[in-house]
Amino acid sequence: MKQQAKEDALVGRIARQLGVAKSNAPALGLGDDAALWKARGGHEVVLTSDWFLEGSHFLRAKHPPDAVGWKCLARAVSDIAAMGGAPRCFLLSLALPPQLTGRWLDEFLRGLKRASHALGCQAAGGDTSRQDKVLINVTVIGEVPAGRAVLRSGARAGDLLYVSGTLGQADLGLEQLRRQRGMARASSAALRKHLFPEPRLKLGQWLAEKRLATAMMDLSDGLSTDLPRLCAGSSVGARIRMDCLPASSLASPAEARKLALNGGDDYELLFTVSARNASRLPKKFHGLPLTCVGAITKERKILLETERGIEPMRSGGWDPFR
Amino acid sequence: MKQQAKEDALVGRIARQLGVAKSNAPALGLGDDAALWKARGGHEVVLTSDWFLEGSHFLRAKHPPDAVGWKCLARAVSDIAAMGGAPRCFLLSLALPPQLTGRWLDEFLRGLKRASHALGCQAAGGDTSRQDKVLINVTVIGEVPAGRAVLRSGARAGDLLYVSGTLGQADLGLEQLRRQRGMARASSAALRKHLFPEPRLKLGQWLAEKRLATAMMDLSDGLSTDLPRLCAGSSVGARIRMDCLPASSLASPAEARKLALNGGDDYELLFTVSARNASRLPKKFHGLPLTCVGAITKERKILLETERGIEPMRSGGWDPFR
Repeated sequence: MKQQAKEDALVGRIARQLGVAKSNAPALGLGDDAALWKARGGHEVVLTSDWFLEGSHFLRAKHPPDAVGWKCLARAVSDIAAMGGAPRCFLLSLALPPQLTGRWLDEFLRGLKRASHALGCQAAGGDTSRQDKVLINVTVIGEVPAGRAVLRSGARAGDLLYVSGTLGQADLGLEQLRRQRGMARASSAALRKHLFPEPRLKLGQWLAEKRLATAMMDLSDGLSTDLPRLCAGSSVGARIRMDCLPASSLASPAEARKLALNGGDDYELLFTVSARNASRLPKKFHGLPLTCVGAITKERKILLETERGIEPMRSGGWDPFR
Repeated sequence: MKQQAKEDALVGRIARQLGVAKSNAPALGLGDDAALWKARGGHEVVLTSDWFLEGSHFLRAKHPPDAVGWKCLARAVSDIAAMGGAPRCFLLSLALPPQLTGRWLDEFLRGLKRASHALGCQAAGGDTSRQDKVLINVTVIGEVPAGRAVLRSGARAGDLLYVSGTLGQADLGLEQLRRQRGMARASSAALRKHLFPEPRLKLGQWLAEKRLATAMMDLSDGLSTDLPRLCAGSSVGARIRMDCLPASSLASPAEARKLALNGGDDYELLFTVSARNASRLPKKFHGLPLTCVGAITKERKILLETERGIEPMRSGGWDPFR
């Protein structure tokens, strides 16, 4: 009768490849004006939107499309983890050059679907458009038991400051990717962390459930950029011990320190625990190291203790407007 | 102590100019990892994301920034109206060239704030980045009483097909804008409709509440592109009477017919009502004309009755991948 609009054919393909049945309630958005979703009683809704833009957040010639698909969802889900929430569904806004609607899109959707399964976060809708660059925006909708979300504003002087995992590894992976010719392969632990980050969902939910974390955020732009945000949110300062930072063992000591302070894209959790509760925190959570890196101070400065003495910490992480 | 990250300064400015107090629960996202929001009991959550991209959806040299701010929210809210829902809060993802973070951004936020107030939809969070073009993605979170959302899938053979308002006026406004030199002014009814569309929230909610509409969607890409989507959603066809279309009186009759069929950006509602209930539908709803333009058929074709006879309706609306 009539040719189906090309945009509709594309939306249909995305829905099929993400394994979304049209009749599924949360998937309604892929065939309707908007998605419908039911929040559980006694829960609050957690909402976040994240850009993932070619040229700014990934390079088309270097980042494999399945890693782009995985990472665009994983990094948005990391914001839900940082509130202590559980992701439920996501909206994908995708703008593409027409020549990428074939194999590139298939690979992208394969990585996205893998993340969707692994993170328990179902495709629910979105929007498509055409552009000369790949533009991605992901909105994740999650839930947290009412009153249990961990904000950036709850840190108090005397609280101890912790990070999960190791810091700087993803940035080291990015350096390796820049040196490789052509499309990157996840050929090292650092590259795997850069290409396929794993949001710390279980840890975030456990810290919220046990009321252990007084404040929390995820490390996406690097400790030296993100810690000032947590401190500003709580109207406090912090003192970091350089020798305590869980730097990557894969780089030289000097390089590893720099990466641990400034490297972005780790998606580890940064959180504070009252001194009284610190003994309740294990050294590892399901194999993931939890490291005390310093303490919260009343004085609103962010200081770094090194072997040379105490100095102000300089923000050297990722800032698109720097 | 340290220079605040420029991105944080920008986020702070956006929050202040949108009149968002940091302590407001739904506004938390502007100073935290994610936004928190509580859905009302007995309601389902309605979710939609919409691109609004320079070059595709607006022209920087032609569209005044306050109209860009108004329209990026209004068109996403229109998807909520098309489900019979009420908007509650939104996430703004904004990528800008650095030279537009001054007056352009101020004007943009002024228009966005005006839409936020007018449509009852509060800023709750989002993301910022830097790009050489203005990229906007808006996610709107709304509510609808459980089980009352009007989907695209409920139309049945014999139902009558209605549209609100007039069709093609926004596209006529776009033509006027293209002919004007420099920045457009809302100097005509058609230009006002193109620059500052008004989502049909009250009508959508009333049709859902009274259970009058069996299926509904908003007309964003033009009747000839959108009607096939409603019909596909309901596995039905339709027969449209050309002489019934509420075409704009501002264009010549031939031009007006073409605009009514193919013109995009009207954000009027397209909905179906069972023949039994048609008498309960007023001719006007709060001054907005409601016009019967045809009927739903069992045969899955979309036909147009004109003075020359019956012909298949060709899709001639907006499709970014055409």
